[in-house]
Amino acid sequence: MPVHRYRRAAPQELPGPGTPRPWLDQPLDRAPLWSSVDLRDGNQALANPMDLKRKRTMFDLLVRLGLKDIEVGYPSAAETEFDFVRHLVTGGHVPDDVVISVFTAARPDAIDRTFEAIRGADRAVVHLCHATACLWREVVFRMTPSEVMKLARDGAERMVRLADRAGGDIRFEYSPETFNVTEPGFALEIANTVAEIVDATPERPLTLNLPSTVEMHAPDVFADQIAWMDRNLDRRDAIILSVHPHNDRGTAVAAAEYALAAGADRVEGTLFGNGERTGNVDLVTLALNLFSRGIDPQLDLSDLPAVRQTVEECTEMAVPPRHPYAGDLVFTAFSGTHQDAISKGLAHLRDQAASAGRAPAELPWDVPYLPIDPQDIGRSYEAIIRVNSQSGKGGIAYVLRSGWGLDLPVELRVEFAAAIQQVTNATGAELEPQRIWDAFRAQYCDPGDWAGFTAPGAAPGTDPGEAADALLAAARERGVYAGTDRLDHDGAGPATGAAHACYARILVEDRPVWGVGLGGTAGAAAENAVLSALHRSGARPQDNAPEPQPAGPKEGTR
Amino acid sequence: MPVHRYRRAAPQELPGPGTPRPWLDQPLDRAPLWSSVDLRDGNQALANPMDLKRKRTMFDLLVRLGLKDIEVGYPSAAETEFDFVRHLVTGGHVPDDVVISVFTAARPDAIDRTFEAIRGADRAVVHLCHATACLWREVVFRMTPSEVMKLARDGAERMVRLADRAGGDIRFEYSPETFNVTEPGFALEIANTVAEIVDATPERPLTLNLPSTVEMHAPDVFADQIAWMDRNLDRRDAIILSVHPHNDRGTAVAAAEYALAAGADRVEGTLFGNGERTGNVDLVTLALNLFSRGIDPQLDLSDLPAVRQTVEECTEMAVPPRHPYAGDLVFTAFSGTHQDAISKGLAHLRDQAASAGRAPAELPWDVPYLPIDPQDIGRSYEAIIRVNSQSGKGGIAYVLRSGWGLDLPVELRVEFAAAIQQVTNATGAELEPQRIWDAFRAQYCDPGDWAGFTAPGAAPGTDPGEAADALLAAARERGVYAGTDRLDHDGAGPATGAAHACYARILVEDRPVWGVGLGGTAGAAAENAVLSALHRSGARPQDNAPEPQPAGPKEGTR
Repeated sequence: MPVHRYRRAAPQELPGPGTPRPWLDQPLDRAPLWSSVDLRDGNQALANPMDLKRKRTMFDLLVRLGLKDIEVGYPSAAETEFDFVRHLVTGGHVPDDVVISVFTAARPDAIDRTFEAIRGADRAVVHLCHATACLWREVVFRMTPSEVMKLARDGAERMVRLADRAGGDIRFEYSPETFNVTEPGFALEIANTVAEIVDATPERPLTLNLPSTVEMHAPDVFADQIAWMDRNLDRRDAIILSVHPHNDRGTAVAAAEYALAAGADRVEGTLFGNGERTGNVDLVTLALNLFSRGIDPQLDLSDLPAVRQTVEECTEMAVPPRHPYAGDLVFTAFSGTHQDAISKGLAHLRDQAASAGRAPAELPWDVPYLPIDPQDIGRSYEAIIRVNSQSGKGGIAYVLRSGWGLDLPVELRVEFAAAIQQVTNATGAELEPQRIWDAFRAQYCDPGDWAGFTAPGAAPGTDPGEAADALLAAARERGVYAGTDRLDHDGAGPATGAAHACYARILVEDRPVWGVGLGGTAGAAAENAVLSALHRSGARPQDNAPEPQPAGPKEGTR
Repeated sequence: MPVHRYRRAAPQELPGPGTPRPWLDQPLDRAPLWSSVDLRDGNQALANPMDLKRKRTMFDLLVRLGLKDIEVGYPSAAETEFDFVRHLVTGGHVPDDVVISVFTAARPDAIDRTFEAIRGADRAVVHLCHATACLWREVVFRMTPSEVMKLARDGAERMVRLADRAGGDIRFEYSPETFNVTEPGFALEIANTVAEIVDATPERPLTLNLPSTVEMHAPDVFADQIAWMDRNLDRRDAIILSVHPHNDRGTAVAAAEYALAAGADRVEGTLFGNGERTGNVDLVTLALNLFSRGIDPQLDLSDLPAVRQTVEECTEMAVPPRHPYAGDLVFTAFSGTHQDAISKGLAHLRDQAASAGRAPAELPWDVPYLPIDPQDIGRSYEAIIRVNSQSGKGGIAYVLRSGWGLDLPVELRVEFAAAIQQVTNATGAELEPQRIWDAFRAQYCDPGDWAGFTAPGAAPGTDPGEAADALLAAARERGVYAGTDRLDHDGAGPATGAAHACYARILVEDRPVWGVGLGGTAGAAAENAVLSALHRSGARPQDNAPEPQPAGPKEGTR
């Protein structure tokens, strides 16, 4: 591969003493200011950008999640963008505790059009963005640094004039792009200049947004750049320091986390990481990473499936199956080892809760292979354990317990799992829970020819052990030499249609055979279990059998 | 959200002096040892695990890419897994420079079955993995640390015995899982014990693999853990130190990069990050991150679309559109600003190459918004710039230049872009290049009623300016008062079906009107351009016009 075309590009050198990186020892301990750019950066990266209706749906979702700072569009770029901002402003659709922002290039006509879009707004942020990096200056705009500085100054001055005229509470955001490859000294100088022109104060701060528009270096490099700006800005207390990481190297989440720890106050991103090329940093992942450490994310993600569905409808793009927290498969285990561990972990949590007299949801979460409780973000346990040829007894047992309330004895699990694995090995495909249940019922809960066989002397409602013994005694009288080896009885889940379950292992001619019975009483369940086991043994009741005889064909269980 | 369930879980404390983190200042400067677990971890996370045929396709792909260390399955877990290993071993399908490894749990029967699977292999690695972390010990296995230590010792001893008997060059890998939440002292002790039992030497090293089976902390925490193991292992020179990061926090790539910089020699991952839950770390992203810094990745990813297609067929899972390097949209720009910058950047590179007398591919890559040249990984430029309502003149000009070899004058770009944006605003959808070209031709290259109109005196093949002037003189004689304002001529791309293009702006009654002509000669192109402009102006040739008259209806251009 043509490696010669690429340099081991050192990041722009940071002037002054070396960076001590205290941020590595001070991970985030509270949520940052979240800013959604779903309606701008996210939108402009879609093959089919959102129309007014989809934009409104996305905006309402963001508000519901608790976003207070929402970039709603780039009104000078397209009619739909302009119209949507007018729709929000004139329709009064922006809640009192939410501030919208609008993005603009530095051209005078673009700035003017942007202010037309927010005319009449009580409050808004105008976000001025232009290129400052060397490659852009030289190749795209053919401007010297001082010409770029003048562009920033002219743009900022124009914004201030127009804001004064507009009347509402209009504030400013400034993005020197691509910050991460701009000479730090130049980025600092231009940021200080803009802060001065807009007269940033702690009461009316400037949002200084530092985009890694194209991610070029490891996360620590970006964090060092942010820490350096944090230390060197003239009016630091009059600035909301913001980052806007993209994901070209696949490290946007780490870059955002370190940059926030390094001094940034605010992060711009999108839900599930939509955005130009590889996307913006994913706000949901950032928020739930905080949540998983016990830090309030300040966003309501308690119904993540609904959030995902709305975003998918608005963007016409799917959240991938392995996307952290939101993907279909991220809480799913197919492998036997993982299934077994999860199953035991969940049972352990239930036991702990029971012995503490509390609900499981009140206890600290600590279950193998599940970084958070899926239910805390509105996902069910149903899909956690799925069965295919890689699965083991733990997964299959979990499926029967969670879906049908049946807690199989370990030996029965092993036997049934082997049968299921024959099926999955043969088909090569996943086996749905319903099909596992169907197979289980057909295999273990069918009395076959023994249906209706009764023990004449037994009273209804007897104790399970007595019921089983009475039936087997009657069977022996009909020539089937069998006895109880083991009998476990338990409750059954509503999906079985019965209240009681019984797992019977009987010995037929010293050969152990399992049967499972369901019934309205423990005794009825035990009788059904014994009859199913008799049927599975291959034995048949013989009409005229004066004395005990060997049972029927040994191998023909079915 | 129920934040109370989660702790600000501090990572396991590392004994000894604080971690200086020199790894942050020493980023990777060469490719690590790559190990693919696509056929094991990746496979066991699929709803429909690969059958023999798909497994073989994946194996052959991995070999072609240059992987030398391939985990091919978990033979004791399922028949297909076992059969595939036998297929490779007995069929002689493993190239001489490739080593396969097979994964096993620590149960004696699993180890025995694993050795059956590799029976007769010239060389192989047996990978022993079991849980060492506290939560697993206590909840899943109910074992004390010393019982777990015995499990490791028994497993390692059994492997050594079976390997001695097997005859081939059988080596070992050991994974204490989940390493990242195991007490470091215990992980170290158990790793040292296993290294001793297998008698690891620099000539026959043990691969010690440290999995973050569930990603729980920031990447630096994991790197610190790896650095600590690196410093404290007894037989460091007899150990290949390996990491196996998962992506639950969305930071697996960063974690792998830092861990490798911190002392790991080897990384286990999968192509495009398939694997349990959120997946394993993506080897392609790691490799291309190195490549983008000018470091030879030691993997051949020069035809990434083909790699992706094969992986998608094997896994039955799609690589998402925003996946770094491989996704459909990651080199695509819809926004006007980005399109303009990319367009200028590519032109600049071509100009640089031309003036240096070299091919563009020989020069260092430096183009805005494109972290690497898509062509270096087998992707075409075609889809880089796509047009929708967010697009500007730069994108539209790029489409016509890259697809049809037409380099429009700036003023014509602006005019045509406005027309296209009306369409995209109205439809809200992306406009394909072919439809842009169709619209351009219909709008600018149609002589309409003027088709066939000639200047009687003009010789064929005349110079474009003369040809245009002669036509306009003839038009004036037919009552249309028009003159040339501007004439640009240039080559045209093969897709136009013509060799020459001409962009003519004529003044009709002082009103400027553009027309575009294509032709086999520059003169013919100029004539067609002038006729199209005349048609667009709304003027019609008048049959009996003794002297110049005002042109026809001014507005009706179409």
